[in-house]
Amino acid sequence: MTRTEPAGTPLGDDFHLYDTTLRDGAQREGIAYSVTDKLAVARLLDELGVGFIEGGWPGALPKDTEFFARAAAGELILKHAVLVAFGSTRKAGTTAEKDAQVRALLDAQTPVVTLVAKSDRRHIERALRVDVAEACAMVTDTVSFLVREGRRVFVDAEHFFDGYAHDPDTALRVLDAAAGAGADVVVLCDTNGGQLPLGLAETVREVAERTGFRLGIHCQDDTSCAVANSIAAVQAGATHVQCTANGYGERAGNADLFAVTGNLVTKLGMEVLPTGGAAELTRVSHALAEVANIAPDTHQAYVGASAFAHKAGLHASAIKVDPLLYNHIDPSLVGNDMRVLVTEMAGRASLELKGRELGVDLAGRPEAVTNAVNKVKRLEAQGWSFEAADASLELLLRKEVGGAQGEPLDEPPFTLESYRVVLDHRDDGEVISEATVKVHVQGERVIATAEGNGPVHALDAALRKALVGHLPWLDTVELADYKVRILAGHPGTDATTRVLVQSSDGEQEWTTVGVHPNIVEASWLALCDALVHKHLRTLLP
Amino acid sequence: MTRTEPAGTPLGDDFHLYDTTLRDGAQREGIAYSVTDKLAVARLLDELGVGFIEGGWPGALPKDTEFFARAAAGELILKHAVLVAFGSTRKAGTTAEKDAQVRALLDAQTPVVTLVAKSDRRHIERALRVDVAEACAMVTDTVSFLVREGRRVFVDAEHFFDGYAHDPDTALRVLDAAAGAGADVVVLCDTNGGQLPLGLAETVREVAERTGFRLGIHCQDDTSCAVANSIAAVQAGATHVQCTANGYGERAGNADLFAVTGNLVTKLGMEVLPTGGAAELTRVSHALAEVANIAPDTHQAYVGASAFAHKAGLHASAIKVDPLLYNHIDPSLVGNDMRVLVTEMAGRASLELKGRELGVDLAGRPEAVTNAVNKVKRLEAQGWSFEAADASLELLLRKEVGGAQGEPLDEPPFTLESYRVVLDHRDDGEVISEATVKVHVQGERVIATAEGNGPVHALDAALRKALVGHLPWLDTVELADYKVRILAGHPGTDATTRVLVQSSDGEQEWTTVGVHPNIVEASWLALCDALVHKHLRTLLP
Repeated sequence: MTRTEPAGTPLGDDFHLYDTTLRDGAQREGIAYSVTDKLAVARLLDELGVGFIEGGWPGALPKDTEFFARAAAGELILKHAVLVAFGSTRKAGTTAEKDAQVRALLDAQTPVVTLVAKSDRRHIERALRVDVAEACAMVTDTVSFLVREGRRVFVDAEHFFDGYAHDPDTALRVLDAAAGAGADVVVLCDTNGGQLPLGLAETVREVAERTGFRLGIHCQDDTSCAVANSIAAVQAGATHVQCTANGYGERAGNADLFAVTGNLVTKLGMEVLPTGGAAELTRVSHALAEVANIAPDTHQAYVGASAFAHKAGLHASAIKVDPLLYNHIDPSLVGNDMRVLVTEMAGRASLELKGRELGVDLAGRPEAVTNAVNKVKRLEAQGWSFEAADASLELLLRKEVGGAQGEPLDEPPFTLESYRVVLDHRDDGEVISEATVKVHVQGERVIATAEGNGPVHALDAALRKALVGHLPWLDTVELADYKVRILAGHPGTDATTRVLVQSSDGEQEWTTVGVHPNIVEASWLALCDALVHKHLRTLLP
Repeated sequence: MTRTEPAGTPLGDDFHLYDTTLRDGAQREGIAYSVTDKLAVARLLDELGVGFIEGGWPGALPKDTEFFARAAAGELILKHAVLVAFGSTRKAGTTAEKDAQVRALLDAQTPVVTLVAKSDRRHIERALRVDVAEACAMVTDTVSFLVREGRRVFVDAEHFFDGYAHDPDTALRVLDAAAGAGADVVVLCDTNGGQLPLGLAETVREVAERTGFRLGIHCQDDTSCAVANSIAAVQAGATHVQCTANGYGERAGNADLFAVTGNLVTKLGMEVLPTGGAAELTRVSHALAEVANIAPDTHQAYVGASAFAHKAGLHASAIKVDPLLYNHIDPSLVGNDMRVLVTEMAGRASLELKGRELGVDLAGRPEAVTNAVNKVKRLEAQGWSFEAADASLELLLRKEVGGAQGEPLDEPPFTLESYRVVLDHRDDGEVISEATVKVHVQGERVIATAEGNGPVHALDAALRKALVGHLPWLDTVELADYKVRILAGHPGTDATTRVLVQSSDGEQEWTTVGVHPNIVEASWLALCDALVHKHLRTLLP
């Protein structure tokens, strides 16, 4: 289904899989990406193999400006994707080159710029408060200025479908202005998300015939048809599709990148990802949910944990005869699995593969694989998740197979006797956190107390104080990021807490996980794993 | 958009809105309806005004048998809907009247029976293990037996689309057998959910032309197109649509009743619900989520809490000019509301709109708006976010404008002197959390201590213990959800923590926010706001 060229082969320009998670997806209620998050999202999208990554709106949002600056400074090396800056056409009554927002688009230093342009006369007259001629001039000026400056330009025709229904001439004039000034793709946007597939496909076909322009499609999910509308548009002639990871976006969201790609690859037989990309859909979807700190939708098409899970007794025995009779595709095509798995990790094959990736050789060790699979399954049932915590998974695997050459693992660098954390909100309003740890390290019992700006910070500080004289590398290790997710309990049980800790020693970064009903204990478990992992690294060749 | 006849007027038989939440929807992982739950679901669906309610599979599932028995005994009085029993055609090699499962369908005493019949030759031969002639005889016998017994019969042609693509003759023979024996509707089922709308519509149109039968449609969401496919089928001639509440169902789920109905009513102008029914969509959707014990999908089309929520500052001022420019429909048509999210991207216009939504009138109070905007901006710079915390925002606005009539706000219900939280990880491995609070309430100083499974739980328990004798409504307030986000610091500053607390008093839910470098203090701030907000509600008219 996917291309047979070696990984990394560029897919050419015939079809654009265009992601706008970092701009339109970030409009979803509850998402607030940091710049580091944005870089992580872009890397994951590039691993999947999308063609274009819209990184944000430089000049309008300081975080986005910083993202493009850090990307340009070498923090973002893309293998497949081209980075895109998004912005608006120039303001009324000025020139493109004098418009600060347009200049910020140039400063972002991306090869491609996508401009949004209003194409519904009502929006032009009532929201923009200019006439159609000026609206078109704003498009023409801005596109030609950016093209002259060496940028490839796409134009998002905002509210296109509503505008075309209301006043087709105005809508087409805006497309003409964009294409005439040198825009490579004009993107028909269902901004309010009110379209249905049969009607939308008819409009796309008609516009393609009337204009001959290269058309893109951008759909919102307000009728629950964003994916269907995107696919229908491709079938009607669009060759550029804008999506967001997991459908994140304003209101009901956008067209889900993973369902759109799954459909294009497995239903329409289109090679829209590099070789091996489709099999990454499930992993990348879940990893992007982690970064957004949104629980993955278990019932999401193609990539959800339940997408190929069967409950119906009616089917159970027949499924054994021929699973494909009861699945619309072979789940492995999109990196998913038919069994009810807590995650993709819990299978033997994927655990072996993952082990190889982490430098833990599980080949020819079937009993170690069995033990590890069982342990992962048991922990995942309790709320652990290793998808984003490679370092914890590596420790778990190494405990099963021993060190690099299979020799037993070294003793842990320290063991805990007890800790106590005290939080005081005093009557003067000040809040004090203090932690005391009692640990055994290199045959010694050490007691240390430290303060911090919160319970976890205090605990981390006390632990470091206790260990630093014994573990010389400890000073290099920093806590780089800390994420918390409250997991709803199974019926009749309490909620539990999952903590992800990202650590750095200036050269490498690694992530560990801890799960416990008590957030401080969950954090402690992740912190300890982080140090044990670093300790192990100092021992391995 | 909806009929103008008085509520309760039967809609006639021209179009069937058919719900299978209680049978196919119950296949969703995590749903386990009791019989009482099932009765509640049926009542809610009837209030909405669906035409048919498939109650379950009597004879196959004891709970479903009991449900039909209790319904027949008078526990379920339906105003609009007709109750349907679902079952299979007779087994191979027997007669319909001797088949226990078919007899159970009669015993269910419903006016309508829906039979499932395999229509894909591969399923007939490999799963059913009979030839096509016997499969057709099973359909003919069972349908005619039930019709003779006075039942109206619909037939679900399982795996129809895959079967028709593989071997159209067999698929059509099964439809012939059903219609020939007296089935009123043959329902084309995309059982594996692999269809896309343009192709599906073509097949429906072709089958309608070739057979002349009354066609129904049943879609699963494996391509994320179930709603789109259902609508496309109606546009192609189907006059009977099977859905489930909120799309509950196996794997990726079924076509969502609320999105399908929203589309039929507002996009195709079809009167598929009694007068007033469409305006009940949002309420009934949330109530059905409650019964299923599944958190409502905030981003669900039409009925989600975020379905009409706007975040972009770009739009906020234009929305004031004309909300319909930025919504695909008037949200009140489906009983939903437009929400404006207050974020760093927004300004005065959106805060005024938001105030109106929260019942805080800011019109003609420019200085109050200025103060509130400045306060929101200052807090957001520190990491606060009000877009998901309406209750905290309402408190903030009320502090600026006073109570309902502008009078100064009442004293807070309690004030804190101090609290202390102690966490012990003991040397036996057990982790203990204990909190002590000292508060002043109604002129008294109260000290209370409680344990919890984590620091926040312990603090919440201690606060409740201190206040419960003084605030009679406290017992009704529950912590419904708790979310934590760690916010990366600006360069040179420490990370901070944002906590969202969702509370419920059994009637209403409200969300509050707290931000502090210390997670326990952030939680404390959100917990206090939650109680102050409830207190205020008890004072307002």
